[in-house]
Amino acid sequence: MAAEQQKYRVERDTLGELNVPADRYWGAQTQRSLQNFDIGGERERMPEPLVKAFGVLKKAAATVNMTYGLDPTIGNAILQASDEVIQGKLLDHFPLVVWQTGSGTQTNMNVNEVISNRAIEILGGDLGSKKPVHPNDHVNMSQSSNDTFPTAMHVSAVVEINHRLIPALIKLRDAMQAKSDEFKNIIKIGRTHLQDATPLTLGQEFSGYVQQLTFGIERVQGTLPRLSYLAQGGTAVGTGLNTRKGFAENVAKEISTITGLPFLTAPNKFEALAAHDAIVEASGALNTVAVSLMKIANDIRFLGSGPRCGLGELSLPENEPGSSIMPGKVNPTQCEAMTMVCSQVMGNNSTISIAGSYGHFELNVFKPVLIKNLMQSIRLLADASVSFTDHCVVGIQANEKRINAIMNESLMLVTALNPHIGYDNAAKAAKKAHKEGTTLKEAALSLNLLKSEQFDQWVKPEDMLGPH
Amino acid sequence: MAAEQQKYRVERDTLGELNVPADRYWGAQTQRSLQNFDIGGERERMPEPLVKAFGVLKKAAATVNMTYGLDPTIGNAILQASDEVIQGKLLDHFPLVVWQTGSGTQTNMNVNEVISNRAIEILGGDLGSKKPVHPNDHVNMSQSSNDTFPTAMHVSAVVEINHRLIPALIKLRDAMQAKSDEFKNIIKIGRTHLQDATPLTLGQEFSGYVQQLTFGIERVQGTLPRLSYLAQGGTAVGTGLNTRKGFAENVAKEISTITGLPFLTAPNKFEALAAHDAIVEASGALNTVAVSLMKIANDIRFLGSGPRCGLGELSLPENEPGSSIMPGKVNPTQCEAMTMVCSQVMGNNSTISIAGSYGHFELNVFKPVLIKNLMQSIRLLADASVSFTDHCVVGIQANEKRINAIMNESLMLVTALNPHIGYDNAAKAAKKAHKEGTTLKEAALSLNLLKSEQFDQWVKPEDMLGPH
Amino acid sequence: MAAEQQKYRVERDTLGELNVPADRYWGAQTQRSLQNFDIGGERERMPEPLVKAFGVLKKAAATVNMTYGLDPTIGNAILQASDEVIQGKLLDHFPLVVWQTGSGTQTNMNVNEVISNRAIEILGGDLGSKKPVHPNDHVNMSQSSNDTFPTAMHVSAVVEINHRLIPALIKLRDAMQAKSDEFKNIIKIGRTHLQDATPLTLGQEFSGYVQQLTFGIERVQGTLPRLSYLAQGGTAVGTGLNTRKGFAENVAKEISTITGLPFLTAPNKFEALAAHDAIVEASGALNTVAVSLMKIANDIRFLGSGPRCGLGELSLPENEPGSSIMPGKVNPTQCEAMTMVCSQVMGNNSTISIAGSYGHFELNVFKPVLIKNLMQSIRLLADASVSFTDHCVVGIQANEKRINAIMNESLMLVTALNPHIGYDNAAKAAKKAHKEGTTLKEAALSLNLLKSEQFDQWVKPEDMLGPH
Amino acid sequence: MAAEQQKYRVERDTLGELNVPADRYWGAQTQRSLQNFDIGGERERMPEPLVKAFGVLKKAAATVNMTYGLDPTIGNAILQASDEVIQGKLLDHFPLVVWQTGSGTQTNMNVNEVISNRAIEILGGDLGSKKPVHPNDHVNMSQSSNDTFPTAMHVSAVVEINHRLIPALIKLRDAMQAKSDEFKNIIKIGRTHLQDATPLTLGQEFSGYVQQLTFGIERVQGTLPRLSYLAQGGTAVGTGLNTRKGFAENVAKEISTITGLPFLTAPNKFEALAAHDAIVEASGALNTVAVSLMKIANDIRFLGSGPRCGLGELSLPENEPGSSIMPGKVNPTQCEAMTMVCSQVMGNNSTISIAGSYGHFELNVFKPVLIKNLMQSIRLLADASVSFTDHCVVGIQANEKRINAIMNESLMLVTALNPHIGYDNAAKAAKKAHKEGTTLKEAALSLNLLKSEQFDQWVKPEDMLGPH
Repeated sequence: MAAEQQKYRVERDTLGELNVPADRYWGAQTQRSLQNFDIGGERERMPEPLVKAFGVLKKAAATVNMTYGLDPTIGNAILQASDEVIQGKLLDHFPLVVWQTGSGTQTNMNVNEVISNRAIEILGGDLGSKKPVHPNDHVNMSQSSNDTFPTAMHVSAVVEINHRLIPALIKLRDAMQAKSDEFKNIIKIGRTHLQDATPLTLGQEFSGYVQQLTFGIERVQGTLPRLSYLAQGGTAVGTGLNTRKGFAENVAKEISTITGLPFLTAPNKFEALAAHDAIVEASGALNTVAVSLMKIANDIRFLGSGPRCGLGELSLPENEPGSSIMPGKVNPTQCEAMTMVCSQVMGNNSTISIAGSYGHFELNVFKPVLIKNLMQSIRLLADASVSFTDHCVVGIQANEKRINAIMNESLMLVTALNPHIGYDNAAKAAKKAHKEGTTLKEAALSLNLLKSEQFDQWVKPEDMLGPH
Repeated sequence: MAAEQQKYRVERDTLGELNVPADRYWGAQTQRSLQNFDIGGERERMPEPLVKAFGVLKKAAATVNMTYGLDPTIGNAILQASDEVIQGKLLDHFPLVVWQTGSGTQTNMNVNEVISNRAIEILGGDLGSKKPVHPNDHVNMSQSSNDTFPTAMHVSAVVEINHRLIPALIKLRDAMQAKSDEFKNIIKIGRTHLQDATPLTLGQEFSGYVQQLTFGIERVQGTLPRLSYLAQGGTAVGTGLNTRKGFAENVAKEISTITGLPFLTAPNKFEALAAHDAIVEASGALNTVAVSLMKIANDIRFLGSGPRCGLGELSLPENEPGSSIMPGKVNPTQCEAMTMVCSQVMGNNSTISIAGSYGHFELNVFKPVLIKNLMQSIRLLADASVSFTDHCVVGIQANEKRINAIMNESLMLVTALNPHIGYDNAAKAAKKAHKEGTTLKEAALSLNLLKSEQFDQWVKPEDMLGPH
Repeated sequence: MAAEQQKYRVERDTLGELNVPADRYWGAQTQRSLQNFDIGGERERMPEPLVKAFGVLKKAAATVNMTYGLDPTIGNAILQASDEVIQGKLLDHFPLVVWQTGSGTQTNMNVNEVISNRAIEILGGDLGSKKPVHPNDHVNMSQSSNDTFPTAMHVSAVVEINHRLIPALIKLRDAMQAKSDEFKNIIKIGRTHLQDATPLTLGQEFSGYVQQLTFGIERVQGTLPRLSYLAQGGTAVGTGLNTRKGFAENVAKEISTITGLPFLTAPNKFEALAAHDAIVEASGALNTVAVSLMKIANDIRFLGSGPRCGLGELSLPENEPGSSIMPGKVNPTQCEAMTMVCSQVMGNNSTISIAGSYGHFELNVFKPVLIKNLMQSIRLLADASVSFTDHCVVGIQANEKRINAIMNESLMLVTALNPHIGYDNAAKAAKKAHKEGTTLKEAALSLNLLKSEQFDQWVKPEDMLGPH
Repeated sequence: MAAEQQKYRVERDTLGELNVPADRYWGAQTQRSLQNFDIGGERERMPEPLVKAFGVLKKAAATVNMTYGLDPTIGNAILQASDEVIQGKLLDHFPLVVWQTGSGTQTNMNVNEVISNRAIEILGGDLGSKKPVHPNDHVNMSQSSNDTFPTAMHVSAVVEINHRLIPALIKLRDAMQAKSDEFKNIIKIGRTHLQDATPLTLGQEFSGYVQQLTFGIERVQGTLPRLSYLAQGGTAVGTGLNTRKGFAENVAKEISTITGLPFLTAPNKFEALAAHDAIVEASGALNTVAVSLMKIANDIRFLGSGPRCGLGELSLPENEPGSSIMPGKVNPTQCEAMTMVCSQVMGNNSTISIAGSYGHFELNVFKPVLIKNLMQSIRLLADASVSFTDHCVVGIQANEKRINAIMNESLMLVTALNPHIGYDNAAKAAKKAHKEGTTLKEAALSLNLLKSEQFDQWVKPEDMLGPH
C-alpha cells in the first residue's frame, strides 16, 4: 500500500534487508539492534551527551580525513550533519538502548547511519542508498567502534564535567560561602557524637561545608587529565591498523577546537580500549562528592528539624504546601532529593567499578553501562546541586533566638568556669544543673560559687571559638 | 489571549495559583514539583509500574471507602479513572521525576490530582475545580502519602516479580534445561582454575546453570512473603490515625482481588513506613540472580570464543553483522548485554542498601530512589533474560568436533591409566607428552607402556563422569 | 646444630623439601604457601570457624571411608585428630592467610597435613613420614579441595548462623520487645521528614524495631535451605570421579550427626563448585539485617541526643567516662560500634557479590575471600548485637518529662480541634502559636476560640494512637 | 592472694577502679573498652600503622608542648615512650578493637595511657599513679580525641601509601615493563569481544598493563595533597578551643620532620573532624587500582590457561605442586590471590563510602572503620603486588610456538588481502577456510586466487601493528 510505503523504507546490511521508519535517518544495523535488544524500554537509551560527543568526534574525523583526501563534498556534508547531531537536532534518530553490544558498536553504527543518511539528504541523494556518503567508508573512515566509542565516552565526560557539574558545584559552594559569611557571628552549640559540645559559630559550621565542596571540585578536576586522553586512532585493537600516522593526534586537536577543551591523544591505545580506569577514577571522585553532599544535606535537614520538637536551628524555605493546618512543618524536600541522588551516585560507583573490572584482553565490553552510569551521576549531582542551591540553601535562615536559647541552656559552658572557681566547684555546679534541670548560672548562684555578674563576665561563648 | 487560555488552566494549592497545561489532568502540587525539582530530565520519571500500582491502590481504597460511606457517584468515577491509570492510558499525566520529596508525597498528589480531574471530567465537572471529586478528601480518603507510597512500592514489586521477572527466569531456565538435555552425551574437558581438568559432559556443565537459575527463582520467590505485606492503613506515622478499623485489612483484600495476587496488611505499620527492609531484601535476591547470570553469560561467551584462537566449544547465533570479511567472528553481544545488566543490578543493590539504611524515626524518605532501582533491576533482569534466551541460548550449538579434539589432546585422561600401568609410568607418559607436545597415547606407545588397543580400552572419558 | 635440628623438621612435597617448625603439625604444602603468599599478615588468616568446619568434614569423611574399607586404626586416629580440630585445640597449626589459591587448596592441604601428622603422633609414628596416615591417601580420601572447601564453607556458615548469629538477634529482639512493652504508655511526638508529626507511643516506635528484627531473623533463616546443601562428593569438577556412590549422601548425614544441624548433599555438584550463590544470598540477608540495625541504632542515638540541645527523649547507659565536667554527656558509643559494624557488613556484601560473580567454568576461585567476609559479617553482627543489647538497649530509659513536654509544645495536636472549632479557626490558632512561639492552648485561648477545659478535653494525644 | 596481686594492678578513671594486667601499660579506660566492646576478637584490633602514627603524633605534640612550657623531664619521657610506639615495640599494649566509640576516643586514651605509664616507668614512678606523667594533662596536652584520631588516620595513610603501596606498584609496573620489552617482537592474535581480531605484539599487550599501573600510581599520588592535611589543632569541635595559636602548624611541621613526609595543617578544621572525604577519595583511588589489577590478573590467567585446552599463550611459574600426575597443570594461584584482594578492596570502598557519608554535625563517628578498611586495602594491594611480581610476573614465559601457531591459523589476516585480490575474493577465501576448517592460505590457493609466495608476501602480521 501507498501508506505503508510512505511509512517505511528498506535498508540493508550484510545480513539482509529491514524496514526502517521512513522519517528516521537510521539504517539497518540500528534497526537490527532495536529488534535484538528489547531491554528496558526507551528510558534506557544512550545518554544524550554521548550522542552529541559522537557528533563532535565524527566532525573532527571528517575534518582530518579531508586533509588525508576525503572528497570535500562528502566531507562538508558530514560536517553539516555532525553539527546537527552536536546541536541535539537529531536526538530522535538515536533509539538504541544501553543494553546492546558491550563495545557500543551498534551506537557507533547508528551515528554513522544517521550522519550518512542526513548527509545524503543534504546532497540530494536517496536515504538508504549509502551514496554518495557511506556510513562505513566515509563517516567511519579510519575509525573503529573500538576507538570511537571510548573517545565519545571521554569527550562526553569531560564536556559534562566542565559545562554542567563544575559550574553547579561552584554555585553551591558559593551559596554556602555566602551563608557562612552571613552566619559568622551566630554562636551556637557544637555537637559531637550528636551530644552537646563546645560552641562554634554557625558560620564556622557552614565553612566546613564550603571546604568539602572546594575539595570536591578539586577532586573532580583532578580526574580530567586522564579523562582528556582520547582512544581515537587505536582502531580495532589499539595498534592503529588501517589508520594513518598523525590521525590520532589531529583528531584530538580538532576535538579540542570544537569543544574548546584541551584533549590529547592517549599515550597508550591498548590501555585506552581494554580498560576504562579513567571512568572508574572519575566515578570515584563523583562518589566522594556524593559522600560530602550526603553529609551536608543530612546536617541541614537535622538542623532544620522541628518546628517545635527538633533541633530547630535553621528554617528552610517552604517550597510546597506542607501540612495545611500545621504551620511551620516544612519538609526538607530539597535535602531529600539531594540525599537520594547521593545514594544513586554511590551505587552507580559500584556498577562502574564492577563493569570496569571486567575488561578482557584488547577490549572492555562494558562500555555502554559505564558511560550511562557516569553520565547519570554527573547529571544528577549537577541538577541536584542547582536545585538544592536555588530552592534551599539561598533561603536558609538562622533561628537565632532558638540557637541562642539552647546554647545558653547547655552545660558545656561550664568549662569556662574552671580557671575561676576550680574544676571541682565547676563540676559541682554542672551536676546540680543537670540533675535539677536548671541553667548552669542558676546552679552556680544557688551554690554561692560566684555572683551573677561574674558568671556573665566569665562565661562568654564568644571567647570559646578558637585557640588562644 | 484565547490561544493562551486554551493552552493552560489555573490550578490552586495552599501556596497559590499555578498554570497547568490544559491537556493534562495534573494539578497544582504536581506542577509545583515540576518546577522545584528540575533534576535529571524525563528519563528519571517515576517508574510506570509504580504509577499503575497507585491506580490499583486508589481503586481499592475507593471501593473500601464506599463501604464506609463515600458517595457512590464519586466512588465509581474514581474507580473508572483508576482503571485508566491501571491500564496505562494516563501515563503522560505523570511527569514527576524520582528526585523529589523522599516520601513520594508529590507523586501521591499527582495521582490524586489526575484521578480527581479525570473523575471530574467523567462526571461533567470543570478540571481544577476539585468538584465534585476532591483529590484529598475523596481520592486520598483515609490515606496519607506515608502509607500509600510504600503500599504502591510493594504492589508494583510483587506484580513485576510475578508477571515479569519470574516468567522470564523460568523461560531462561527451561531453555538451559533443554540445552542440558541436548548436550547430555557430549563429553568435554573440565576446567578448574581455568586449567584443564577431568572431563564432564556439556550437559552436566549446563545443568549447573539450570541449578543456579532454579535456586535463583526460589530466592526471588522467597522475598514475596514480606513484600506482600502492605503499609496501607498506617497513615502518617503508622498509628492509623484518621483511618478506620478494618480499612487496612479491607484494602489489602481489594488489592489482592484486583491483582489476583495474595496481599496482606502489614503486621506492624511503624516498620512498614519507617523501614524498607523488604525492598532491600528483594534487591538482595536480584543481586544474587545477577551474580548467577554474570557467571553463566561469562562462561558462555568464553566457551564460544574463537573462531580459531579461543576455546571454541560453542557456536553462538549470529544476530548482527560481525566482521563483513571475517566469517565466524560472532560477537557474543547478548552475553554482553546480559553482563552489563548484571553490573547494573549489582550497583543498584548498593544504592538500595544505602537508601534503605537511612530511614529516620517514623519515615524512611528514600522511597522513590528505592523503588526506582528495584523496578529497574527487575525490568532489566527480566528483559535481558528473555533476550538472552531468544537471541542466544536457544541457538547455541556445540562444536562437537572441536570439543572432542581438545578433550582428546588433553593430558588429564592419564589418570585413567594408573590402575593399569601404575602411577609412575602414567606420570612418565604424561610428562613426555607435555614436553614433546604429543598426545598421551603417542607418548605411552613410544614408551612401550601399553598397546594401542589397550589405550583405547582403558582411557574412556565416558567412564569418568561420575562416582563408581 | 642440635638446636637447629630441634627447631625444624624436614617435610616434602613433589617440588622438594622444606623446613617446617618442629612444634607445628603442618607439612610442606602449608609451608610453601606461607612462603609464596606473604600477604596481609597474621590477621588475615583463615577464619577459625572454617578450620573447625574442616575438622567436622574430615571426621565425617573418615567415618564414611571406614565403611568403605579405610583401616580402622588409621580411621580412628583421624577421628581423634579431627575432634581436636573441631575443639579448636590446634588453631595454632593453621597459619595460612585467605590470600592464597582461590580454591582454598592450600588450606585443605593444611588440614590434611595437620590431621595426618597429629594422627601419626597418636599412633606413635614420625611426623612428616606420612606413615601410617597419609594426608592425601587417607585424610583426603575420596575428596578433592574443590569439594571439601565449599563443604567447609557451608558447614561453617550454617553453624555460625545457628549458634552465633540467630541467638544474638533473638536476644536483641527480645530486649527491644521488653522495652516496647515497658514504654507502651509513653505518648510522644512522631517525626516524619524529621519534622514534628502526629503522636505515637514510644512503645509503638520500638515495636517497629522489634518487627525489623523479627523479619531479619526470618531473612537469615530463609537462606539456610540452600546453605545446608553440601558440595562434598563432587570431587574435582562436580562429576564425583574417584569417589563412590553414596559417599556424598553419607558424608552429609555424618556432618548432620556431628553438628546436630540438618545438612543434605547438594542436588547438583556442578553448581556447588562453580558458583557460590548461596553465600551471596546469605550475605544479602546479612546486608538487610545491617540495614535494619543501621536504622535502629541511628534512631536511638538521635533520640538520646542532648543532654540539653538535642532531642533528649532517651537516656542511654553511661558505660565510659564521658566528659568529666559535663554531666549528662553520654556518648552513644554502642550505637557507634553497631553502625560501624553495619557499614562493614554492607561493604562485605559488595565484596562477596563481586567475588561470587567471578566464577569460571567448573570452579569459582574466590572461595577464601567469600567465606572470610561472610564469617566476619556473621561474627560482627552477632557480637555487636550482644554488646548493643547488654550495654545499651537493656539500660535505655525514657525521659518522660521531656517527651511529654515537647509533645505538648508541638502544634500537630491542632488537628484534634478541627471537629470542634472548624478547620479555619484551628489553623488560625496554630499559625498564631507558631508565629508567637506560644503553646497551641495559649494561642487558642487568646483567640477566644474555646475554653481551657475544652482544650484539655478535646486535645488528647492518647486518642490519636490508632484508627477509630 | 599474692599471685593475684602480681598479675593485676588497679587503675582508675572517673567511673571507678578496674584491674589491669600487671604487665600491660594500658589503664582504666582501655580496660573498660575491652570489657564493653567484646566484638570480633583479636583480629579486629586497630591497625598497627595507626598505632604507630599515634606515636608520631604524641611525639610531635610533646615536642611542641615543650616550647609552650611542658616540663622537659616529662616531655622527654613522652618522647622516649612515643619512639617505642613508633618502633612497634609496644604493640601488645594496644588491645582495642576497631568496634568501639566512633571517634576512636578509646584508642586515643589507650595511647595516652600506654605512653604515660611507660614514661612514668622511665622516670621511676609507679604505673597507674598518673604521676609524674598524666595521660590527659601531659600526653594529651592541647589535644582532643576528635583531632588526634583523624590526624593519626591521615599520617598512617600517607606513610603507608608512600612507604608500602607506591613502591609495590612501581615494582610491579617495572616488572611488567620488562616483560613488555622482552615480548616486543612476539606477534600474537588480538582478541576483542573474546573473539579473534587483528594482531598485536605481546609486548604491546603488556604495555597496556604498564600504562594502567602508571596511571594507577598517579591516581594514588593524586590523593596525597588532601591526605596530607592534618586535623590537629581543631580539638573538640574544630575551633581549636584549649589549644594555642601556632600549635596546629607546629605539630604539622614536627610530624613532617619525624616522618620525612610533607604534612600541613588543614585549612579548615571543621571539615577535618566532621568529614573524612580525603579517606573516601583515597579509597576511590585504591578501588581504581584494584579494578586495573583485576583486569590484568584476569588476562594473565586466561592467557596462561591450558596446558592443552585453553589459550595457552603464556606459561606461569609453578610455585606449588599442581597435579602430581598431570604435568603442565599450573594453577594461576598468584592471579587468584590478586583478584581476591581486588574484590576485597572494591568492597572496602563501599564500606568506606557508606561510613564517610554518615558524619553528623561536628564529628564523623565512623573513624575506626574508615581507617581499618583503608589500611587493609593499602596493605593487601601492596603485599599482593609484591607477591604477584615476585612469584608470577617475573617468571612469565611466552609460549611463542603456540602464539605463532594460533595466530597463523586465524582468519583475521584476510584483511591484508583486500588490496590485492579485492574484498569479495578475500571474503570468499575466508568463508571457505572457516567452513572447511582449513587455513586461509589453503583456501585461497584452492580457489586459485593467488600463489603461495604471494600469500606469504602479502599476509604479513608484522605489517599490521600500527598506523601506516
